[in-house]
Amino acid sequence: MSTKIRDRLFLVNPKYDELFGKKCYASILDIEDEVDYAAIGVTAMLVPKVLSECIEKGVKAAQIYSAGFGETGIEERIRLENEVKDMAKGRIRLIGPNCFGVYCPKSGLSIIPEASTEEGSVGVISQSGSVAESFSYFGGIRNIKFSKVISYGNAVDLDCSDFLEYLADDPETKVIAIYVEGTRDGKRLKAALSEAASKKPVVGIKGGMTKHGSRAASSHTGSLVGSPETWSSLFKQTGVIQVKDFDELVNAILAFTCSPLPSGKGVSIITNSGGFSVIQADLCVEAGLEVAQFGEETMRELRKMVPTAGTSIGNPLDAWPIYYNIAGDPGNLADIIKIVALDKNIHSLVFQFDQLRYLRRMLGERLGGYMEELVDVMVNGCEYARDAIGKPVFICVSLDPYSEDEEDRRYNLKVKKAFESKQFPVYSSLDASIKALSNIYKYGTRFRLG
Amino acid sequence: MSTKIRDRLFLVNPKYDELFGKKCYASILDIEDEVDYAAIGVTAMLVPKVLSECIEKGVKAAQIYSAGFGETGIEERIRLENEVKDMAKGRIRLIGPNCFGVYCPKSGLSIIPEASTEEGSVGVISQSGSVAESFSYFGGIRNIKFSKVISYGNAVDLDCSDFLEYLADDPETKVIAIYVEGTRDGKRLKAALSEAASKKPVVGIKGGMTKHGSRAASSHTGSLVGSPETWSSLFKQTGVIQVKDFDELVNAILAFTCSPLPSGKGVSIITNSGGFSVIQADLCVEAGLEVAQFGEETMRELRKMVPTAGTSIGNPLDAWPIYYNIAGDPGNLADIIKIVALDKNIHSLVFQFDQLRYLRRMLGERLGGYMEELVDVMVNGCEYARDAIGKPVFICVSLDPYSEDEEDRRYNLKVKKAFESKQFPVYSSLDASIKALSNIYKYGTRFRLG
Repeated sequence: MSTKIRDRLFLVNPKYDELFGKKCYASILDIEDEVDYAAIGVTAMLVPKVLSECIEKGVKAAQIYSAGFGETGIEERIRLENEVKDMAKGRIRLIGPNCFGVYCPKSGLSIIPEASTEEGSVGVISQSGSVAESFSYFGGIRNIKFSKVISYGNAVDLDCSDFLEYLADDPETKVIAIYVEGTRDGKRLKAALSEAASKKPVVGIKGGMTKHGSRAASSHTGSLVGSPETWSSLFKQTGVIQVKDFDELVNAILAFTCSPLPSGKGVSIITNSGGFSVIQADLCVEAGLEVAQFGEETMRELRKMVPTAGTSIGNPLDAWPIYYNIAGDPGNLADIIKIVALDKNIHSLVFQFDQLRYLRRMLGERLGGYMEELVDVMVNGCEYARDAIGKPVFICVSLDPYSEDEEDRRYNLKVKKAFESKQFPVYSSLDASIKALSNIYKYGTRFRLG
Repeated sequence: MSTKIRDRLFLVNPKYDELFGKKCYASILDIEDEVDYAAIGVTAMLVPKVLSECIEKGVKAAQIYSAGFGETGIEERIRLENEVKDMAKGRIRLIGPNCFGVYCPKSGLSIIPEASTEEGSVGVISQSGSVAESFSYFGGIRNIKFSKVISYGNAVDLDCSDFLEYLADDPETKVIAIYVEGTRDGKRLKAALSEAASKKPVVGIKGGMTKHGSRAASSHTGSLVGSPETWSSLFKQTGVIQVKDFDELVNAILAFTCSPLPSGKGVSIITNSGGFSVIQADLCVEAGLEVAQFGEETMRELRKMVPTAGTSIGNPLDAWPIYYNIAGDPGNLADIIKIVALDKNIHSLVFQFDQLRYLRRMLGERLGGYMEELVDVMVNGCEYARDAIGKPVFICVSLDPYSEDEEDRRYNLKVKKAFESKQFPVYSSLDASIKALSNIYKYGTRFRLG
């Protein structure tokens, strides 16, 4: 927890007089100051007692971390959840139970110890605690910073709709991610989704889209779940971009935080890996994009710069000798990116840096110095394409999660960070970058057609 | 290059007298010994001269690394390729040009310096050099070992069909991966695919499935490509398992090398991450599998062992308190795996170890000792399910490729390697493990239905 909230934080636990160097109270009623917000993490059976004390104390809102309520499907636990719900009504606003509550970098509120206190523009609303927690955690790895992350679990009081209404009008939130398993008020959710999606990009996963998934959802947060078709059409009608899994959600959100929208579906892939570019051209088309043919002028210019043997002059552009300084200057790479970006058939670029091992084989000890030069050239070329020409550039720096080659990891991380420092969205696979690009393209088409 | 082939290796280059401590010949004709096989890596225009010397020397086969032939689309280069083809006919067998040739761990033949000399059961036939090279490289990371890897490029002589016929009868090859962009003899390829797929699993990617991909393929290896539908139906008719991208290919091959085939589509996911299990149950169904409901007996047994609060007793089984030793003994995890594996609705298991960061928060310095115990329990439980009960168990150890948390990486790698040492297929995402399982399931159905 950051210092921001620490001065007005009170700990309550009857078993201790002191915790983490701070005084510990036996009950919230013993605290002399006013308390605005409570985070409750006691065993489920004790929640009604603690909640009644919060109400007596005049606490305005509470998040209930405790699980063991309606989501268990056990009758006695459903009754317990209803008791909590009835007790709160009109007296206190509740987030949860069975949730992580709120992570807000600005105030320092978080129950996740490693959470960053850097403020950002991403709002996350998640029915699942682990999805919210993982999103917060991966933010640190993926250069994503948050305004507010809310995990709301069983939603006995505040529901997805409430948080959507709040984030839609929150000036600190520029893009919203939602993970929802179900709702108790579909009509209100539809209105809240429409409202939010009309103001900023909203990207969503409905957990439990299939028969089996929805059974899992029901035992996960006890939601009324609805059919997959209902949810897909709800997302479509309200302008929410629906994604299929957590990675695609994070990847799309990253794109929205830092990329301009493409003005059309024409993509160019610039890569150093020929066989893969063929596969990935296929994936582009499946994602609703188009690996457009270069214009004649572009082809003429490229033929001057890219050696013929072992490359493919065309789109995808397999320009490996340039990356590796085998034929032609690595400096040419910036010009190549520029030439491609100027092509009027091309609306966005995917720039890939892959197979560092070739460079290592060829350069040996000269690798370090060469990489510095190459990284500068790549970043400058992509900056020009994005900032001067105005086209989105998505970066792919491939790295296997289980690679134990530390030198490989170190150099690839340097490339990743150099691009991130200029606010490019960086992905670890071409597939991921293409899907993310396709998701922001979809969002853009709404405005062009409307 | 391994020592195996080194004693009978001759280097040819007129510019040097000695290279790497070995004598260097000005021409292959100067070598006193007989030469069986030549690897040619000179600039395209010199290939005919070098090839004619190889023929004169009586070399039986050669691989031509050099690019700059028909794949460029330039008329003069197409003529050059035809010249090479005509010269070879009836005199020498050729692999290439525009390829990496053969990597064979047993003989030590490889142009990739890092290639392992450990022999295995996977045969790879790839028209693309980078796909072949990457497959060989990722083998080392993913516990995949090869019999033969062949990159054949423009295929002026030996084509996919030749290598298929060879690997189909090669006793060292148990499973075949192919990456093909096109062929000059569709009829023969169909026969070769049928023959190979009737003898062992064949998993394939057709590069250039879409209009754009096929344009890329044509400039990549100069192939006659055919329509996507033609290729999909060719794969289907011949019993080849078609996958969409390189990762899916590697993941499926890994599964075939070490897993028994599932006897049905019922899958159980055992995990420590609730929200994700809902999403992943959806992905299972999309992959053609079924997250089957547990039988009554299984549910009764599980309820005794898994605490109610915050978990989901059902399939997927979100049993996080057991992993974290919060409630119940971590030793119970082995019994839980066993109970699930005994359920007659369940034909295979996906076992996930995720979110190590929770364990670190809770255990602090006790993590090291606890992890040793936990890894043993997890591996033993999964071994029992696979070896005593006979059901496939796929392992997912999640790790972000760009995580810089070295402790996280170290412990996750330990888990991965512990499972690999017992020949379990390990994946870095649940999505990847589910797709791989679905691919070996598809293969199994052929025999059950036939």
